[in-house]
Amino acid sequence: MKGLTKIVAAVAFGGMVAGMGSAFAADAELSNAPQIITRAETVKSVFGAEGQFTGHVRIDPMFNANEYSHYTVGMVTFDPKARTYWHTHPSGQRLIVLHGHGLVGTIDGKASFVAAGDTVECPPNVKHFHAAAPDAGFVHYAITNNKDGKSVTWLEEVSDEQYNNAVKAATAE
Amino acid sequence: MKGLTKIVAAVAFGGMVAGMGSAFAADAELSNAPQIITRAETVKSVFGAEGQFTGHVRIDPMFNANEYSHYTVGMVTFDPKARTYWHTHPSGQRLIVLHGHGLVGTIDGKASFVAAGDTVECPPNVKHFHAAAPDAGFVHYAITNNKDGKSVTWLEEVSDEQYNNAVKAATAE
Repeated sequence: MKGLTKIVAAVAFGGMVAGMGSAFAADAELSNAPQIITRAETVKSVFGAEGQFTGHVRIDPMFNANEYSHYTVGMVTFDPKARTYWHTHPSGQRLIVLHGHGLVGTIDGKASFVAAGDTVECPPNVKHFHAAAPDAGFVHYAITNNKDGKSVTWLEEVSDEQYNNAVKAATAE
Repeated sequence: MKGLTKIVAAVAFGGMVAGMGSAFAADAELSNAPQIITRAETVKSVFGAEGQFTGHVRIDPMFNANEYSHYTVGMVTFDPKARTYWHTHPSGQRLIVLHGHGLVGTIDGKASFVAAGDTVECPPNVKHFHAAAPDAGFVHYAITNNKDGKSVTWLEEVSDEQYNNAVKAATAE
C-alpha cells in the first residue's frame, strides 16, 4: 500500500502517533492478562423496565464497567413510538445509531430525528429522552459513563403530548 | 405492555435502578448544555498509517475523548489479511464486531477468530494485534481508553509468519 497516501489514524486510536521511542519502555510493563472475548450467542437480552421505558424496548448488554473502563455498553432497540422516561446521566452518554429512525429530545422542547451512522453526545445532567419515531423502529448502541458507581437518574414518564410535540419539533427542524 | 414480564435494564443503563427518590435532587442540578448530534455524512474517513497498520485499513472516527468521556470511538474496517502492528493500550480497549471475520492475537501466541456480535475486551498493557481473516474483511467499532492523554503505544509490525501462526492457532482453538 506504499503508493497510497495514508493519513495518521490519530483520532480513532486516541490521538497518539507511532512514538516508536516508547516501545521498549512499554515492553517492560507488559501484562499477561488474557483478552476477553464474549460471543454473540452468550448475550442475554433484557427488556425495558416499567418506570424507565414506555412501550417495547429490548436491551442487549455488551460490556459492564470495570476498573479501567468507566462505562457500560449495550444495544437498545425500540419499537415505533417506544421511548425512555425522562432521565439524566451524571457523567454523560454517547449513542451510536445502528438502524431505523430515532428521536432524541431535551426538556427545553428541542428534538431531532437521527438515523444510521449518526451519533449523539449527551452531556452530564441534561434532562432528555430517546425514542423511536412514530412509524419506525430505532436501534442504537449506548455508551453510558459511570460516576461514583452511578450512570443514570430516572425521572418522570415522557407523556404522549410531550412525545408528539417532540415529533413536531424534530419535523420542523 | 403491562402484560409482559419486564426485567430491570440494569446493565446497559449502568446498574442504576429507578431511584425516584433522587429525582428532585437531580432536577436541582440540571444542565442546559445541548445534545451534540454528529451526522453520518459529516464523518471524514482516514486510512491506517504506515508504522501502525499492514494492508488496507480504513478508520471512520466517531467520538473524541472529552472531559467526562475518557475514550475515543471509531469504526475500523480491514481488508482480508490486513492487520494492526503489535501494540498496547495503557488503559485498555474494547471492540464490538460489526461484520466479517476477524482475528485477535496476543504476543504469547494465543489467537481467536471473532464474528459479528462478539465483543473483545483488551486489558491495559497487553501486547496484541487485530486483523482480518485471510479471506474476509473485518469491521469493528473500537472504544479506546485514554490515560494521561495517551491511548496506544505502537510496537513492531506483525510479520507474515506471526499472522499465519495466529491463523493456525485460531483455527485449532
